[in-house]
Amino acid sequence: MSLESYRKPVDTLSGSLRIEEAIDLPRIAIEAVSPTVEGGRFAAKAIAGRTLTVRAVLIADGHDKLGARVVWRELPAGDWQHVPLKPLGNDRWEAHFVPPRACRLAFAVEAWWDVYASYADELKKKYAAGVPISLEVHEGELLLEKSAKVAHGEHAAALQGVLTRLRDTESLDRRVGVLLAPETARAMAQVEAHPHRVRSALYPLEVERRLAEFASWYELFPRSASNDEQRHGTFRDVIERLPEIAEMGFDVLYFPPIHPIGRTHRKGRNNALTTVEGDPGSPYAIGSEEGGHEALHAELGSFEDFRALVAAAREQGLEIALDFAIQCSPDHPWLKQHPGWFSWRPDGSIRHAENPPKKYEDIVNVDFYAADAMPELWLALRDVVVGWVEQGVSLFRVDNPHTKPLPFWEWLIADVRGRYPQTIFLAEAFTRPAMMARLGKVGFSQSYTYFTWRNSKAELQEYLEELNEAPLSECYRPNFFVNTPDINPYFLQTSGRAGFLIRAALATMGSGLWGMYSGFEICEAAPVPGKEEYLDSEKYQLRIRDYRAPGNIVAEIAQLNRIRRQNPALQTHLGFQAYTAWNEHILYFGKRSADRSNFILVAISLDPHNAQEAHFELPLWELGLADDAATEGEDLMNGHTWTWYGKVQWMRIEPWVLPFGIWRIRVPGDVAAPAAPAAK
Amino acid sequence: MSLESYRKPVDTLSGSLRIEEAIDLPRIAIEAVSPTVEGGRFAAKAIAGRTLTVRAVLIADGHDKLGARVVWRELPAGDWQHVPLKPLGNDRWEAHFVPPRACRLAFAVEAWWDVYASYADELKKKYAAGVPISLEVHEGELLLEKSAKVAHGEHAAALQGVLTRLRDTESLDRRVGVLLAPETARAMAQVEAHPHRVRSALYPLEVERRLAEFASWYELFPRSASNDEQRHGTFRDVIERLPEIAEMGFDVLYFPPIHPIGRTHRKGRNNALTTVEGDPGSPYAIGSEEGGHEALHAELGSFEDFRALVAAAREQGLEIALDFAIQCSPDHPWLKQHPGWFSWRPDGSIRHAENPPKKYEDIVNVDFYAADAMPELWLALRDVVVGWVEQGVSLFRVDNPHTKPLPFWEWLIADVRGRYPQTIFLAEAFTRPAMMARLGKVGFSQSYTYFTWRNSKAELQEYLEELNEAPLSECYRPNFFVNTPDINPYFLQTSGRAGFLIRAALATMGSGLWGMYSGFEICEAAPVPGKEEYLDSEKYQLRIRDYRAPGNIVAEIAQLNRIRRQNPALQTHLGFQAYTAWNEHILYFGKRSADRSNFILVAISLDPHNAQEAHFELPLWELGLADDAATEGEDLMNGHTWTWYGKVQWMRIEPWVLPFGIWRIRVPGDVAAPAAPAAK
Repeated sequence: MSLESYRKPVDTLSGSLRIEEAIDLPRIAIEAVSPTVEGGRFAAKAIAGRTLTVRAVLIADGHDKLGARVVWRELPAGDWQHVPLKPLGNDRWEAHFVPPRACRLAFAVEAWWDVYASYADELKKKYAAGVPISLEVHEGELLLEKSAKVAHGEHAAALQGVLTRLRDTESLDRRVGVLLAPETARAMAQVEAHPHRVRSALYPLEVERRLAEFASWYELFPRSASNDEQRHGTFRDVIERLPEIAEMGFDVLYFPPIHPIGRTHRKGRNNALTTVEGDPGSPYAIGSEEGGHEALHAELGSFEDFRALVAAAREQGLEIALDFAIQCSPDHPWLKQHPGWFSWRPDGSIRHAENPPKKYEDIVNVDFYAADAMPELWLALRDVVVGWVEQGVSLFRVDNPHTKPLPFWEWLIADVRGRYPQTIFLAEAFTRPAMMARLGKVGFSQSYTYFTWRNSKAELQEYLEELNEAPLSECYRPNFFVNTPDINPYFLQTSGRAGFLIRAALATMGSGLWGMYSGFEICEAAPVPGKEEYLDSEKYQLRIRDYRAPGNIVAEIAQLNRIRRQNPALQTHLGFQAYTAWNEHILYFGKRSADRSNFILVAISLDPHNAQEAHFELPLWELGLADDAATEGEDLMNGHTWTWYGKVQWMRIEPWVLPFGIWRIRVPGDVAAPAAPAAK
Repeated sequence: MSLESYRKPVDTLSGSLRIEEAIDLPRIAIEAVSPTVEGGRFAAKAIAGRTLTVRAVLIADGHDKLGARVVWRELPAGDWQHVPLKPLGNDRWEAHFVPPRACRLAFAVEAWWDVYASYADELKKKYAAGVPISLEVHEGELLLEKSAKVAHGEHAAALQGVLTRLRDTESLDRRVGVLLAPETARAMAQVEAHPHRVRSALYPLEVERRLAEFASWYELFPRSASNDEQRHGTFRDVIERLPEIAEMGFDVLYFPPIHPIGRTHRKGRNNALTTVEGDPGSPYAIGSEEGGHEALHAELGSFEDFRALVAAAREQGLEIALDFAIQCSPDHPWLKQHPGWFSWRPDGSIRHAENPPKKYEDIVNVDFYAADAMPELWLALRDVVVGWVEQGVSLFRVDNPHTKPLPFWEWLIADVRGRYPQTIFLAEAFTRPAMMARLGKVGFSQSYTYFTWRNSKAELQEYLEELNEAPLSECYRPNFFVNTPDINPYFLQTSGRAGFLIRAALATMGSGLWGMYSGFEICEAAPVPGKEEYLDSEKYQLRIRDYRAPGNIVAEIAQLNRIRRQNPALQTHLGFQAYTAWNEHILYFGKRSADRSNFILVAISLDPHNAQEAHFELPLWELGLADDAATEGEDLMNGHTWTWYGKVQWMRIEPWVLPFGIWRIRVPGDVAAPAAPAAK
């Protein structure tokens, strides 16, 4: 099988088409191939081991039958695999296959005129209608003979067998029986020419490991891990905290930068422009005389300590994620070693960084397109990432990627993933929607989202729906962080404990990826007044917490993560469907796994202060059940099971007990796979 | 300006990107360019003289200002034109231009880093904030100097003037004034380098004359034009009917095939398989000893008569449309002259045509991919069309195009339109939606639709909305035929006169293109019982009618067409917006012209038997008016004018009077152009 496409490029600009070109154009049009991103310019996202559905629209003149399949292989040179496309009606076709491991794949859609199937279909209809068909039977014999002539080996033998059976009988009924036999169809399928065969473009797929789509992230500042405000925390201290984090069900432990912190323009407590003795500074002011992005902040420990932490975390089922923040404190060694990587002002200074409205007086940015920076800076940054991968880190949360060039990310991610396919990049992009999607296209595995600013039922429902639809569904995986060191959501500042449970339920049930920054589990919410910032932010100082403080929600978080691990429907943001609950404070939706066997219903009251009640609809129609059917449900927070009778049910949610309900409903085993979407 | 794109092809399949390639990739991403079809593979549709809106999403890292424009030219080698793209917010940009005439165009989107605009924006903000800016002013001087060095002629002089004014003053305020002056911005825009400039692919546009989007078609069988059942009608008889057709406001007069009719297997009355003496046969059984697709059926008249008819029609403002039906009676000369253009069965016969469930025993199809047919048959068919164009015909209704190869249409339409850009092709495709859209993509100007089978309010509203959205809005123009010789809609079989008025109003108000087959104006509806066929169908016999019969709707049709001519909003199917009327039998919508000055409201009761009443909303919000505003309206069917007070109004529709209302509302002259769509 060759990579060459049968589809010739056409000069659509001239407006004319030479007759020879027209005759060579594919007779069958292939449209709407999915999953694809920007017509194949970028890879669509897939997960190793998870069934992938390929869809296409095939359009051909007339009424003959088409054959079609998906061909795919691992790049650069795996063996070609193929799987049949099956018609769904209205020219839409679908195929499924399972990418076996993290890699880059390419797939294409092939289609052809299925001459024998068209013939057999017509013969069958005419035979059933009782019209004269001796001419049709003769035509069938000719088709078989034609193919037998070009067949070899076992295929030739099979066809000769069919022809012998056909000629051995004078009975029209038996001859029709031979022509319509499944083995005749199979023999012809092996041999018959495929006229008007066409292959689509090849479309790339980036297949990632499961953690790229299903993971719970826990963020902490290692320097606070000492649990002693007078002593700078260390990687060894973090090791002590691992069991409790693992017990809450997290998979990823993420640290803000752990590199040497600059002293020039160092920020004091609460983002002050001046410091007092002992202020540690923001870890985002990366680089000092002790080193830059490749170095460790000495007070945290040695590389040996760091590797010990990575290993200890793995034993607890946790992977370490590091922050990749491409910026420099004015003390970063690069300013002296590579002044050509920066853009200098006429007075010999460098403009400090901004991400409006935020100002970062303690950091400066590199200039990716400075003459001296291409390619040295790009390569140096790649080497920073590779260096940390070699220390056992395979997840990177990338700081403000939208302020760095898109081609840089496209190159860096492809380069690193080419060497280490397990690497996962999370984009910390809070910017305009087109840029956030584009970062997914150029290679980020997942992204921060607008989740923290979606609070009403309508906002949440619309957002979850948008994430489930193309183009986002094919290029963008949302990681729902409930808070970050930069975001102390207004809602949580006044919601009390119930609000934290609400946001935890929304995040854990809404997406396969969610994250929290430490303090959330003890409902920490004191703000800089009027701002979405934490008071006494850990970005500028150590913070000691009592993680067992009364009112903590550790048990609930652990249970939510447990439910996620037990239910495939909750291991992705895909498969979301809003259902009807007649109360504007109750968001009510279903998540269903791609194989449709796991079906979870979630109702979350968005009101942390008052009880809310609602009638709601059980989606019996999705289960192929009548409106008065009985359904078995299980409350996944407390294990109770019961039977619902009928479609419309009633609920009451008391936020002081639990502001949400999560139910698994039994999918009737005897219900056939759901019908294809209705033809138009 | 060169055609070369700055965008380099990237090997997305290898999954890796060399660093040199990455550095050369465009820094600015261009996405979602519209109007485009299949990424530029096909031309999007446009109309000469009508404002075209180009949209694109431009994505770049950071916070600097971009500049952008659309470049376009007539193909193959017109002068390049350009028009600025303006930002709408959220990375979306928009530009407008007016294609001057029927032709093929190409356009592209260009974007670049606007260094001076970014600089000036920052200077302005800092100046307003009162922070120190002497360094910024110095940077501005350096930017001007840098550009002055590379400028020539008047641009150099302009920049030198700016620099002189800047250096002539010590006052910081005045220096800022010079740097921010509009003439400084203009001078820099002329000269400044455009770093990171990128150009999108070139996208083709097929620009057609207005009749491709706004036309009223009238269909008749010339052989019935004698008004005497005993005498075969002629082209001369048709000339007699022209004034009454023109007075009804039609633009296009369309004939079923006018070629010699075969005798073998000729169909009798009501599709009988046998004939009696005098049966004229179906005109779709094209070809006899007298000739084929290039010939005239002798009883209709000579070529001289035909040209006289074409000329007389033009004098009445009517253009003639012919049927292009690629099929042959068994008597067509091609069967003998070119047996290799057909697919012969083992018994020496040719399979008769079918379009399930319809059977056409009197015709056979050509085989486009027969060895002898490529390219001779294709060329012969092209020559048939060109021959009729040379007789003065520039509209073709193409019979069953979906049963002929798509590449054939793509080639034929481009070839004919390359010679005669005024040519318009209407696809008679009643098939699956993907094929109908694809026919628009390969070049058909317009298409038959599902209109005749959309009867309920929900069906009609959904269909009109779908036609207004991409991809259909960019590749498919709907021609709403209310009936055809093949479709006697079930609704009209029992609706009585009011039903004909309902369907006429839906068609004329819903699309710029509508059509009717003669008999509709006198509410003819007698069916073959239980079928959507006309009894005593004119396809198989002459039909004499009294076009002044009592109960005719000639005056209403004329008034509907008059309203269309007077209101640009009604000259396209685009610009449709459903509004709220609280009655499921009343479809209520607005049509608004692209320049938003012409605004029509339409309410149509879908109930031909009973009066219907409803409260309904005037779309005051679209006019920038408060909910209690007064609006002036004019009833376009009777000329009454009045003032509505407030948003919610009431209507009563009595089908025995008129089953619809059409109102023009005054667009307040002092309302500013509507705001851009809200940012997300």
